[in-house]
Amino acid sequence: MADAPLPDGSTLAALDLGSNSFHLVLARKIKGEISLLKRLGEKVQLAAGLDECGNLNEEAQLRGLECLKRMAPFVQGLNENQVRVVGTNALRAAHNSDDFISRAQDLLGLPIEVIAGREEARLIYSGVVHTSPKIEGRRLVIDIGGGSTEFIIGEGKEPELLESLHMGCVSYSQRFFPQGQFTEKGYQQARLAALSELLHIQKAFLGLGWQQVLGSSGTLKTLALVIGKGEFAPLTPQSLRSLEKDLFNSKSTQSWTAYGMKEDRARVMPAGLAIASAFFEALQIKEMHFADAALREGLLYELAGTSTELDIRDRTINSLQERFQCDPLQSKNVADTAIHALRQVASNWGLAHPRWENKLRWAAQVHELGLSVAHTQYHKHGAYLLNYADLAGFTRQQQQILAVLVRTHRRKFPSLEFRKFSPEHQLKLQRLARLLRLAVLLNHSRPDQTQLDFTLEVNNTNSQETLALRFPDGWLEQQPLLLTDLAQEASWQAAAGFELTYA
Amino acid sequence: MADAPLPDGSTLAALDLGSNSFHLVLARKIKGEISLLKRLGEKVQLAAGLDECGNLNEEAQLRGLECLKRMAPFVQGLNENQVRVVGTNALRAAHNSDDFISRAQDLLGLPIEVIAGREEARLIYSGVVHTSPKIEGRRLVIDIGGGSTEFIIGEGKEPELLESLHMGCVSYSQRFFPQGQFTEKGYQQARLAALSELLHIQKAFLGLGWQQVLGSSGTLKTLALVIGKGEFAPLTPQSLRSLEKDLFNSKSTQSWTAYGMKEDRARVMPAGLAIASAFFEALQIKEMHFADAALREGLLYELAGTSTELDIRDRTINSLQERFQCDPLQSKNVADTAIHALRQVASNWGLAHPRWENKLRWAAQVHELGLSVAHTQYHKHGAYLLNYADLAGFTRQQQQILAVLVRTHRRKFPSLEFRKFSPEHQLKLQRLARLLRLAVLLNHSRPDQTQLDFTLEVNNTNSQETLALRFPDGWLEQQPLLLTDLAQEASWQAAAGFELTYA
Repeated sequence: MADAPLPDGSTLAALDLGSNSFHLVLARKIKGEISLLKRLGEKVQLAAGLDECGNLNEEAQLRGLECLKRMAPFVQGLNENQVRVVGTNALRAAHNSDDFISRAQDLLGLPIEVIAGREEARLIYSGVVHTSPKIEGRRLVIDIGGGSTEFIIGEGKEPELLESLHMGCVSYSQRFFPQGQFTEKGYQQARLAALSELLHIQKAFLGLGWQQVLGSSGTLKTLALVIGKGEFAPLTPQSLRSLEKDLFNSKSTQSWTAYGMKEDRARVMPAGLAIASAFFEALQIKEMHFADAALREGLLYELAGTSTELDIRDRTINSLQERFQCDPLQSKNVADTAIHALRQVASNWGLAHPRWENKLRWAAQVHELGLSVAHTQYHKHGAYLLNYADLAGFTRQQQQILAVLVRTHRRKFPSLEFRKFSPEHQLKLQRLARLLRLAVLLNHSRPDQTQLDFTLEVNNTNSQETLALRFPDGWLEQQPLLLTDLAQEASWQAAAGFELTYA
Repeated sequence: MADAPLPDGSTLAALDLGSNSFHLVLARKIKGEISLLKRLGEKVQLAAGLDECGNLNEEAQLRGLECLKRMAPFVQGLNENQVRVVGTNALRAAHNSDDFISRAQDLLGLPIEVIAGREEARLIYSGVVHTSPKIEGRRLVIDIGGGSTEFIIGEGKEPELLESLHMGCVSYSQRFFPQGQFTEKGYQQARLAALSELLHIQKAFLGLGWQQVLGSSGTLKTLALVIGKGEFAPLTPQSLRSLEKDLFNSKSTQSWTAYGMKEDRARVMPAGLAIASAFFEALQIKEMHFADAALREGLLYELAGTSTELDIRDRTINSLQERFQCDPLQSKNVADTAIHALRQVASNWGLAHPRWENKLRWAAQVHELGLSVAHTQYHKHGAYLLNYADLAGFTRQQQQILAVLVRTHRRKFPSLEFRKFSPEHQLKLQRLARLLRLAVLLNHSRPDQTQLDFTLEVNNTNSQETLALRFPDGWLEQQPLLLTDLAQEASWQAAAGFELTYA
């Protein structure tokens, strides 16, 4: 029974008793995907309560138990197939962790697993891989915890190298910045200590290599947000150096709270930066992107039993289509037509990179999303959903692109909707929009079999970017609906400064 | 096979070849309800093409066939279980309708049924009943068509008296306002002709009686919109009289286009008003509300095989819950708690009428609707969906009420959200919102079994409308989560000028 996949609609929960924070995520399994119900997080700083003898002091234990009392009601009634509670570094390290664990188990009524560093690394990798776009080649994933930092190299869903090092933002803060006092000397010591830890794994990791580096955890999230001044920006050796300078000048990370960092994270950021700076150097990392998933998501995906064969973005779009009852045949026909059209004009229009085909296909697959809300103005409802939905694997900007393509796929061509993108991007997105509009129009009557027997040519020499659509001789005359629709579309495109011809 | 209900996800279509317009609706059966894909309507004015010998002239036939050529692609590939094409008065009346029908059938590849006036009346009644809130007692439904007007009295889903009279907005326009020329004399003649037709049914209808009058059809829709200056307002003897005066003064209905009437409807409105004015007099109608459903919806519901036992609004809410995957247990627990709370304060707070309980229950049932979009700010997404969704049976204002209750069910109490309602309404809605918030909070941990062992009292004597919540002695102290939540809620309510006490 324990191995049978949970039925759709089941509630799932993962409780992560980390060294820095305790986190609870509550979700439902819907159409094979994870749909979040609730996130709760409290900075318990268990690791800060480890005394010199390696025991968790009573104060830290009580902080943890108080937090669990508030979280317990959420997991009450869930069985062991639906919920996993795991402890990580602080509970691995504390000599008296059995004490805390038995008190916590009594409170929760659920078993607590203290997982090894490598298992933690495996689950982090699983969480990140499940929620990040597929890539060719290997990926390095790093997660800075309160008491340990995990390093994983993997390809696809298989982790190949898993390591957990004894350095974390809480434990290093205690050690190098006692009483929360920042000093440059402390920072350099922390950095050196981290470099020394990294010697254990440096050779093996550099030997295997990777194509992409992703960082998870709150510490790396904060760094990405501070670098981007409130938007996610990549971590690079340069950007880390400039943060260091900033820190040396102001002797505090307090000013970083302006970019979405919570006050109580300020305290552990110098240690976190020292650790990041060290692994950038030791592993010669050039660029790291933030991935918004970790241990907890790994636990949830394991509980849900979701497969990872498809790219997360395709999975997300499929799940969206199913959840919002898009007509699968119509979506497919429009997508096929759009791609057929794109391929004829891609090189001429600078849309040859696969990313444009992906965006056009995804937009086509969900262009009728808004019908689930109402028929009236459904293109606007679809755009709303794509803008705000929690779409695993998609960046904010990618969601905005899908939203604008769906927003503009019918009725007047609203050029103003593209304003939020850069000028070069605008032009390409308007081109994609024109292709999607044509594809929708060619499938207006919702045929079982779409008509792909047409050619499409572009003429960019005039300012109107003429699109010339051509059907087999004599065919178009027999299609009164299509003729009416094309005439209307040509006038809408003309109003937006474009030309459409057809024969 | 033909009698087996169509599977979920099936496409359905109804094509109504009316005397004034041809209408196509395309829909999908989703979770047992009808989800609209497309509406197409063209003013063909078939009835205007009936010559003195009662034949449809070639011009009118060609108008009809051209329209069908544009509509045909939408029904291609659908089988006879999925689509119904019906002709009404003009095709009943024309001596040569077989001619037109065989040409139209060849074009559509589908059988066309010319239905009798009573069958038309039955289908109209079914369409209206399926999409209007349940009432106690009998209902009179009236639909003004191009060539006939249908009158139905029914109770629940059963029609009891069905009549179709030979008067319509197109045929009366031809007869009393030739060449589209409005005259007061023509108007009075049209009205008298209608009164004379009504003599046939007056006695039987008045004998049976009714509790509510609903009008469908474009003509009655236009009258409701013109009376309400762009919003739906009830038709009354007074409001019709004031439209008549307006018409006599300006000799044209052209000015009514400002309120959403299409240009080509202007022509038939004087005849429509004369007919309405006549049946208001003959049947002594005091008030009629517009119902946005008719023959086409009746056809769709028959094709879908949807039962009508439940009130349409309960069916709509159920379908919404299912389509957007609301957790049924949590929705039920919150609704039960909210109702339990309401009943303790209803008389004191002026919320004793069942309509308040309905609104609170519906809002509770869908309060998590927005989770289908994203966890972040899901109360806002839920409000968006409720504002814009096509919710059969609900008026615009009822949707706004559900939306505001869902919008305000968590986080800060945003008093400004209630601004759009009248002051008296605002207060009652804020009271409902406070009850819903409490119900959500009492089920925060998503328990299997909700805790209904509490009392709630109100004190309206102070300006803060104090709510006093009381649990069994000693119970609350054991609930750290609830204590934290209640403290937070009390401070949010205080910020909005309300008081919440608990013990």
